[in-house]
Amino acid sequence: MYSEAALVRKIRRRFSESGAEVGIGDDAAVVDLPDGCRAVLCSYLLVENTHFERRTHPSDSVGFKSIAVNVSDIGAMGAVPTRCLISMAVPADLEESWIDGFLDGAAEACRSFNVAIVGGDSSSSERIFVDVSMMGHVEAGRAVRRNGARAGDRIYVTGCLGGAALGSTRLESGPRTDPAIRRHLYPEPRHRLGRQFAPQATAMIDVSDGLSIDLGHIVTESGVSARIERDSVPCHPGAGIEMALHGGEDYELLVTAPDLPAEVDGVPVVRIGEIIAGESNRIVLVGDSGEAILEPRGWQHFRPDARQASA
Amino acid sequence: MYSEAALVRKIRRRFSESGAEVGIGDDAAVVDLPDGCRAVLCSYLLVENTHFERRTHPSDSVGFKSIAVNVSDIGAMGAVPTRCLISMAVPADLEESWIDGFLDGAAEACRSFNVAIVGGDSSSSERIFVDVSMMGHVEAGRAVRRNGARAGDRIYVTGCLGGAALGSTRLESGPRTDPAIRRHLYPEPRHRLGRQFAPQATAMIDVSDGLSIDLGHIVTESGVSARIERDSVPCHPGAGIEMALHGGEDYELLVTAPDLPAEVDGVPVVRIGEIIAGESNRIVLVGDSGEAILEPRGWQHFRPDARQASA
Repeated sequence: MYSEAALVRKIRRRFSESGAEVGIGDDAAVVDLPDGCRAVLCSYLLVENTHFERRTHPSDSVGFKSIAVNVSDIGAMGAVPTRCLISMAVPADLEESWIDGFLDGAAEACRSFNVAIVGGDSSSSERIFVDVSMMGHVEAGRAVRRNGARAGDRIYVTGCLGGAALGSTRLESGPRTDPAIRRHLYPEPRHRLGRQFAPQATAMIDVSDGLSIDLGHIVTESGVSARIERDSVPCHPGAGIEMALHGGEDYELLVTAPDLPAEVDGVPVVRIGEIIAGESNRIVLVGDSGEAILEPRGWQHFRPDARQASA
Repeated sequence: MYSEAALVRKIRRRFSESGAEVGIGDDAAVVDLPDGCRAVLCSYLLVENTHFERRTHPSDSVGFKSIAVNVSDIGAMGAVPTRCLISMAVPADLEESWIDGFLDGAAEACRSFNVAIVGGDSSSSERIFVDVSMMGHVEAGRAVRRNGARAGDRIYVTGCLGGAALGSTRLESGPRTDPAIRRHLYPEPRHRLGRQFAPQATAMIDVSDGLSIDLGHIVTESGVSARIERDSVPCHPGAGIEMALHGGEDYELLVTAPDLPAEVDGVPVVRIGEIIAGESNRIVLVGDSGEAILEPRGWQHFRPDARQASA
């Protein structure tokens, strides 16, 4: 039997050094912001049997991912992630080793991304449910939104795409050292690149639902269309173009800007197309056999049980 | 079938006017803080069949409560609640009327407490799961914690206690107009009083788990003990002293201070005892038949299925 009081004590011991004016264990946490900055807020749900399964996903990957995906969202605004709240509901008979693994993964992500856990809530439930809310900061008026892309902007993507989708198909049988499986389990957010792109970027989003869906958000919000060169889309080794176009959870950055360098901090920044005028908000895919409209599909093609959209 | 994309569209339409620099629909929200203030953060989970049942709890009460309980936590720091994120996981076959009712209740609470919803996340799950994270602000160094109570301070409670516990026992059969049932379903946070008490208060907490548990947090965190006069504890009409001492979810404020007025904004502020020296962190209950130690119990006595602790 794993009691919630024990869970709270464990989290509090583990994350007591948050640097907050008031941290875990009071009604609310009190944190500082640098002068002239705006608070940036987001949250991300991870639900057992929707986002992960206890059988196939090590608990440290669930903990790591719950932090990493929020860091990615904050970074995609050109902001700096700083603090978070973890809310967890767990079954009363959950093994303590699952919790320990989860906290190991969350702690590792917090260290890697320089984020502190300052509070949260806990409860019991039939399935494991994790919601992490994160705060960051950005200079006033400097947040990079999805709605600023303009005709003539180039479209860039960092790293390569399709690896997480490939990894999810190999999860049952592959070794934990497989780079594609690691991408699925321990995503590497590009928040530091997002911060560097912010002064040039006209629009930015992280590729969480898949390129076809996430670029769709940019063209729709910006009131433009896009042309993508099929052959220039960087595919993860072993992943085909379909996974690169529609597989989600890569947490690479998709950026529109007049010009970006071809590499930043050792990460390739690949030009895959350009923004064009057109209120139809379409994405034209240009390949050897001509042009076709790229319809939004997303990674539910690879994992039919998975979630369809995020707020 | 209720899709998550439809849920996101509905929330976005409903709460589009948040006053945030960037609101719902981007990777993260961007919000402003008054100069010289600190951000205050908290979150609260509501899990179907743990905190509420679809059969007995109207969905607008779940929406209202998800906001109100966070407002209460922010207020118990002496801070002003301003923005929140709503994360929801719902079954795919949930009736749209449940969602509409939930959003009606959340909107009503946001209006009442002057809070804006600026983002969140959504997913599917077998049971309804709601996590609201809230941000507020407080002047630097002015947050009222649980650890400042000193021997000689008086102990005060706002309003009366035990009503929510009483309401939870009547929920199956009583009318929705019953004040005790309304207390359970639509709690009224005392955040505006919390703000007013802040300059005088040495410690403050909202009574969410029950007086015996929540006063226990103050004496433990402050390294003191307490004496409570049994006859001075204000009981909700119809609720006995046991419900007032151990029933939770009243969301009244429990405050220690040298002196507070007997009434603020029409709400009674009742002196129920005093802080005494004593590292044993005990609560002594003084009644007609002498003194006894008040052991922490909490409202699980009234609803055995309910949660035991919060972070």
